[in-house]
Amino acid sequence: LGQARELQRYHRQHDPARVLALSDGVFAIVITLLVLEIHVPDLAGGESLTDALREVRPSLTAFLISFLVTAIAWAGHRDLFALLRRLVGVVQLRLSLATFFLPFGAALISRYGRESVALSLYGFLLLLIALTRLAVWLYATNRPHLLHEPIDRRAKTVGVLIVAIPAAVYLLAIGLADSAPDASLAIYAAAPVLYFVGVFVSRSTAPPDEADEFT
Amino acid sequence: LGQARELQRYHRQHDPARVLALSDGVFAIVITLLVLEIHVPDLAGGESLTDALREVRPSLTAFLISFLVTAIAWAGHRDLFALLRRLVGVVQLRLSLATFFLPFGAALISRYGRESVALSLYGFLLLLIALTRLAVWLYATNRPHLLHEPIDRRAKTVGVLIVAIPAAVYLLAIGLADSAPDASLAIYAAAPVLYFVGVFVSRSTAPPDEADEFT
Amino acid sequence: LGQARELQRYHRQHDPARVLALSDGVFAIVITLLVLEIHVPDLAGGESLTDALREVRPSLTAFLISFLVTAIAWAGHRDLFALLRRLVGVVQLRLSLATFFLPFGAALISRYGRESVALSLYGFLLLLIALTRLAVWLYATNRPHLLHEPIDRRAKTVGVLIVAIPAAVYLLAIGLADSAPDASLAIYAAAPVLYFVGVFVSRSTAPPDEADEFT
Amino acid sequence: LGQARELQRYHRQHDPARVLALSDGVFAIVITLLVLEIHVPDLAGGESLTDALREVRPSLTAFLISFLVTAIAWAGHRDLFALLRRLVGVVQLRLSLATFFLPFGAALISRYGRESVALSLYGFLLLLIALTRLAVWLYATNRPHLLHEPIDRRAKTVGVLIVAIPAAVYLLAIGLADSAPDASLAIYAAAPVLYFVGVFVSRSTAPPDEADEFT
Repeated sequence: LGQARELQRYHRQHDPARVLALSDGVFAIVITLLVLEIHVPDLAGGESLTDALREVRPSLTAFLISFLVTAIAWAGHRDLFALLRRLVGVVQLRLSLATFFLPFGAALISRYGRESVALSLYGFLLLLIALTRLAVWLYATNRPHLLHEPIDRRAKTVGVLIVAIPAAVYLLAIGLADSAPDASLAIYAAAPVLYFVGVFVSRSTAPPDEADEFT
Repeated sequence: LGQARELQRYHRQHDPARVLALSDGVFAIVITLLVLEIHVPDLAGGESLTDALREVRPSLTAFLISFLVTAIAWAGHRDLFALLRRLVGVVQLRLSLATFFLPFGAALISRYGRESVALSLYGFLLLLIALTRLAVWLYATNRPHLLHEPIDRRAKTVGVLIVAIPAAVYLLAIGLADSAPDASLAIYAAAPVLYFVGVFVSRSTAPPDEADEFT
Repeated sequence: LGQARELQRYHRQHDPARVLALSDGVFAIVITLLVLEIHVPDLAGGESLTDALREVRPSLTAFLISFLVTAIAWAGHRDLFALLRRLVGVVQLRLSLATFFLPFGAALISRYGRESVALSLYGFLLLLIALTRLAVWLYATNRPHLLHEPIDRRAKTVGVLIVAIPAAVYLLAIGLADSAPDASLAIYAAAPVLYFVGVFVSRSTAPPDEADEFT
Repeated sequence: LGQARELQRYHRQHDPARVLALSDGVFAIVITLLVLEIHVPDLAGGESLTDALREVRPSLTAFLISFLVTAIAWAGHRDLFALLRRLVGVVQLRLSLATFFLPFGAALISRYGRESVALSLYGFLLLLIALTRLAVWLYATNRPHLLHEPIDRRAKTVGVLIVAIPAAVYLLAIGLADSAPDASLAIYAAAPVLYFVGVFVSRSTAPPDEADEFT
């Protein structure tokens, strides 16, 4: 009986529900704050609003990139927690500290999108988010008792690739930040597209019966 | 048994609960941020607070319009998800990207409410929100396996009209932005009223027994 | 069977869960934004940080008042929804529009705490919140089918007084805003205290067995 | 029957679910707002972005400290509420008022990190959060009917020490704020580390079977 109680308490304390509530709150705020960096322009003497709004465009690009990055991070978070039964060890990291810096990073590249420092810093943020996700994924998938059910080798590999490939791409963008800032920025913009292609490919190569029945 | 497990996992991954948590968070933040655009005025030399507050009035109008628009978007979201059993395909769009821009749009028309660019941009935001909702509605209502239960033709048509009519009205406002900015602004203010009348009419023409028993 | 389905759908669409998620989100944001109005001071030449912080004090008072007002509004909201089974009619108002303006009102009285316009506006906000709550309370308690269980006359009266008395007090403060701004501000600060005394009195006069067993 | 109804209503009104929703919302917002204090620098004439970003570093330190403090406060909140069955009395305090001031405190020490007033104020915030948590802990653990199950003496003591030791450390930092500001700041930075060591030690000295089976 004492055992049963102990177990019950254990589950109450490691229940992912509140962690999810907090994480969802943070994602909702981060993704909404991104747009706060897009300010309504002040009109300088004689300037038309159309011209002034044109200057807002780099902010918009930075917003869109960071919006997709945040959305992908949230989707990854959701998929991971759909597998998890318990929250212990590294899994408790769950939200990379870097997630909180995305609005800052977006503001930075929206204002200094051609400066190599800004581009590198932004890349490091994205890299950190990817690596935290990778660490949690590897830790959790190697400890079957943390999962609702064991996952097969193929799903495990897909889970690694979907994080490792973008990470490699971000590394390339950081390397190019100094010599080719435009290429670096283009890579940041292209990476989310790559991600969606990756998800599409991984789904279309999934065992046919699964795809038929559930998608 | 493997099938059952697979299905269970599938449901865990496509459960709308977390998506709703995120969406509700975003709506709560967007609707609250709208009011942040209403700044406490600084008093210029000799100006009284009453005069200064009078200048806040356009912000207030912009806030009220955007507040109603956001509230309607949320209500539509809630009604749609009350029907949905699964989240796949286009349905995953769920939140129009444009929703995030509402605070920016509100700030824009509160400061430049007579400029045609500001009025058009605001109109495009509202149009985008309406069209996303329409797309999700059409996609979902044509795929009965996504719904808790099939919906009848009448409910389907009402669901289309409740989005399509405002969309047509917003198009008109965009068209008038250049030649008649005041009329354009008035339309944005009147559209939410139109919506509430529409909801009222659609309810009062519903089959009587339904109305009797549940309302 | 069709009836049962209809009923099920009806419950899915009028389930208070999502409304509560949104409301809690809004309350959490409003109450947190209040503190954003308290800015870290800039030091003017030669000024010490201690002096500069002293100037922050009116902001602090305004924050504390509005914090308590928001907390009370939330508690009232929670108690009301603990009674409600369905969300229809006026009950859908649930959140007074004025709630969203509390951060603006707090910023206003923190900067212009002796100006009668600021004091009156703040009073009207508080009055509007109280009257919305009163309207929802009266509407809901007179429609037993909206409640989980009928409530007795005593609870109904307490629910009215707990809103009507503060409303009367706010009216007094608005009346004094012009002639005696300091008294007006003092009333806003004292009203939440009055509220907590009221709650205490209403509880200590509750039927003894109830108090014994559950508190 | 009347009793049963009464009890049911009582539970509906004292259910911690909504309180948790609100608290999680507040924590999510506070922890996200902290990063808002880190502004993208403006470049003064001739200054490079690298130099400008160097000036952001104190903000970063202040953010990291406050981030950890908030995370610890949330974890403590979660652990406490995993024990609680009812919300009455002092337990209703649940969120220290000081939590809301953390973004202000972080902004203060990021700009005036060597001023004794700023350091003392920040220390008082942390102290207040710790003391509120201690009060709620002592109140709840001495009233077994508020808990899901009674907790043993060892867990009770650990719960006290995990709050009282940091509180003592913060007191020391406040004492040093005037004479040795750098030491004071270093203590604020070191305290969260101390906390994690404490959690680790308390876990590794837990009864072995517990550790074996559940961790």
